[in-house]
Amino acid sequence: MKQSKYFLKTSKTKPAEDVSANAILLEQGGFVHKEMAGVYAYLPLGLRVLEKIKNIVREEMNSIGGQELIMTSLQRKELWQKTDRWDDKKVDIWFKSQLKSGGEVGLAWSHEEPITDMMRSCIASYRDLPVYVYQFQTKLRNELRAKNGILRGREFLMKDLYSYSTSPEEHEGFYNRVMQAYLNIFKRVGLGNDTYVTFASGGAFTQFSHEFQTLLNEGEDVIYLSREKKIAVNKEVYTDEVLQQLGLKKDELEEVRASETGNIFNFGSTKSEQMDLYFNDEEGKKKPVILGSYGIGITRVMGVIVEKFHDDKGILWPDAVAPFQIHLIALKGAEVQAEKLYNQLLEQGAEVLYDDREVSAGVKFADSDLIGIPVRMVVSEKTLAQESVEVKKRNEAEAKLVKIDEVKSIFSQ
Amino acid sequence: MKQSKYFLKTSKTKPAEDVSANAILLEQGGFVHKEMAGVYAYLPLGLRVLEKIKNIVREEMNSIGGQELIMTSLQRKELWQKTDRWDDKKVDIWFKSQLKSGGEVGLAWSHEEPITDMMRSCIASYRDLPVYVYQFQTKLRNELRAKNGILRGREFLMKDLYSYSTSPEEHEGFYNRVMQAYLNIFKRVGLGNDTYVTFASGGAFTQFSHEFQTLLNEGEDVIYLSREKKIAVNKEVYTDEVLQQLGLKKDELEEVRASETGNIFNFGSTKSEQMDLYFNDEEGKKKPVILGSYGIGITRVMGVIVEKFHDDKGILWPDAVAPFQIHLIALKGAEVQAEKLYNQLLEQGAEVLYDDREVSAGVKFADSDLIGIPVRMVVSEKTLAQESVEVKKRNEAEAKLVKIDEVKSIFSQ
Repeated sequence: MKQSKYFLKTSKTKPAEDVSANAILLEQGGFVHKEMAGVYAYLPLGLRVLEKIKNIVREEMNSIGGQELIMTSLQRKELWQKTDRWDDKKVDIWFKSQLKSGGEVGLAWSHEEPITDMMRSCIASYRDLPVYVYQFQTKLRNELRAKNGILRGREFLMKDLYSYSTSPEEHEGFYNRVMQAYLNIFKRVGLGNDTYVTFASGGAFTQFSHEFQTLLNEGEDVIYLSREKKIAVNKEVYTDEVLQQLGLKKDELEEVRASETGNIFNFGSTKSEQMDLYFNDEEGKKKPVILGSYGIGITRVMGVIVEKFHDDKGILWPDAVAPFQIHLIALKGAEVQAEKLYNQLLEQGAEVLYDDREVSAGVKFADSDLIGIPVRMVVSEKTLAQESVEVKKRNEAEAKLVKIDEVKSIFSQ
Repeated sequence: MKQSKYFLKTSKTKPAEDVSANAILLEQGGFVHKEMAGVYAYLPLGLRVLEKIKNIVREEMNSIGGQELIMTSLQRKELWQKTDRWDDKKVDIWFKSQLKSGGEVGLAWSHEEPITDMMRSCIASYRDLPVYVYQFQTKLRNELRAKNGILRGREFLMKDLYSYSTSPEEHEGFYNRVMQAYLNIFKRVGLGNDTYVTFASGGAFTQFSHEFQTLLNEGEDVIYLSREKKIAVNKEVYTDEVLQQLGLKKDELEEVRASETGNIFNFGSTKSEQMDLYFNDEEGKKKPVILGSYGIGITRVMGVIVEKFHDDKGILWPDAVAPFQIHLIALKGAEVQAEKLYNQLLEQGAEVLYDDREVSAGVKFADSDLIGIPVRMVVSEKTLAQESVEVKKRNEAEAKLVKIDEVKSIFSQ
């Protein structure tokens, strides 16, 4: 992509209202546009990052048998009344609206009720089970205080997976596969070393739910972490009784702040019973379906990555989620050679942002650091004199000269 | 994809409330789930069709220089007040809601105002222009009477493209490229022969807008069509004066019903002036940006395709948008050979739905006709006796035997 033609406008001035690194850098870098607090549009550069994260999540969901679908934003009141979650006193983040044809409608903050209701027309027998379906869907949550850029939004993108199983055993088998898939995802997006399975409160059916908490000073949660055992306990269930139950001792746990990037809920048969989702087992006996729900905040993950990987000049994207692989920069007098190299790299299938703009070298370098593409390649009269380009990784201080002929072989996969 | 594992439940009973073919067949075929009138979830089979349509549209948008982004669902009241489109008396399809933090918020029925406002921070000089950006976005419209399945929804998927140009001439050049791209899209999705550029009312700035109307008895619009000149006039502007202006005579025009699958609006500088979007030209003179907006109803296109391509047994998807290319059916006793062929076809990169279920041949054939995958391949003891499979196209009456060895070469591209 030629930067002169790309819809990408960086800014030197920090947004006035924001203090968190992700809000500042994503907006300054031209990744997002803030529509209102907690409501962000994703510009071409930001959408590329989102799609990279989505594709990693999609691959891992497919690999455990998940099938993608898409539910609706408009939701029926009566479904949420069945589980007593319509009332604003019970769920305080609803956006609701009036239908012109009469009655109220809810805007999706979650999809457990509609998808479980839908399953009533799809699941009748044990032969129809198990079902593992997921979606990437915009959630709307009427937060009183949206904050920290895309870490806590009023409108955000979530991947939610639902499992419908015949028995607690079948459920548990899948539950464990999701745990592993989630660990794979966090590893692949660059958060593996800082993301811990965390015991949290489980709601009506089970004692615990599992959260995936990524260590972050700006995170909203406090967890007690054993780095050695790779396990943590959310403050909300941090009691002597729970610690004993989990075989953990206070002195091996460290109090740290973290951001909840994923979570897993086991609903058992509670919701199915509330919503009348039953199946006939092999002996013809009517049984409630066992439900699990598994979320990953896609936009939040993007925000956490920025919080963790940035310096005072800008973002340092991990390779797997970077909007482009290579930021190619042409300096004055080297445009012809740079364009030639650009075309060669494209032919090899590399993802290249090519800064062909007529602006100063200083502006180009500053933008390149701000945007944070993993590899910067500079072509100048000086490098061309040595038949080379200057290659610098965003996360390394030193640049090195690489012969143009060798650039090809480095980036051909 | 093995059908026994696929989240796909067809139904023999027609949905009670619906009369249009797309509503009935898409729901019976397991493509969609009706959440409420005009609000549909897309199940895995339906999502595959949507993604095929989206990818065709995406390719054509990219080929004319469009860049993909994604705007927000939550919208600010004050932006729409600037153009006098907030008031329910002016726009009667708003969904609105209250923010917990105070004030009203709108749910996106269109994005012209927010995207044009956003451009104020991206466009300052002629050097920043032109800008061509598009999105695939869910639109919410509070229709009093949603009808005809996914033809007119209260929640639906739209591709909307916006062009920001320095001059009417630059605008017109791009406008014409979009016209051509749209014709390519309708051709590729199978609607080329029935989709006509149609003159319709243009609103405040121009006399006409251009609609893309696909001939359809169930369509909501009436147009006057010259098949010979490949041009049509919407009933709303069908006057003697307009006909004279367009050089058309009444007796060469045919009155037909059609569905508006695409439209193009030229806003000129009106909206930019209302919303304060100006740029400095090469001489430093302040000028309003010229705006065009170009929509295609992605879910409506899917519905129109079903309306046009179905028979009394089910859907007949055009190749380019079919959820799978091949529906492979194993009959009793031929499961081992069928599975082998399934794996071979997958290796060749074919998209195959493999009916490995333990149900009768009759059920399999009926489901196959209902779902409407272009090529059906049946493996049975009878066909295997001749080292063959039975191949039948959904849109042809006759099946033919093809040697298994030759199947490979037919479907390797």
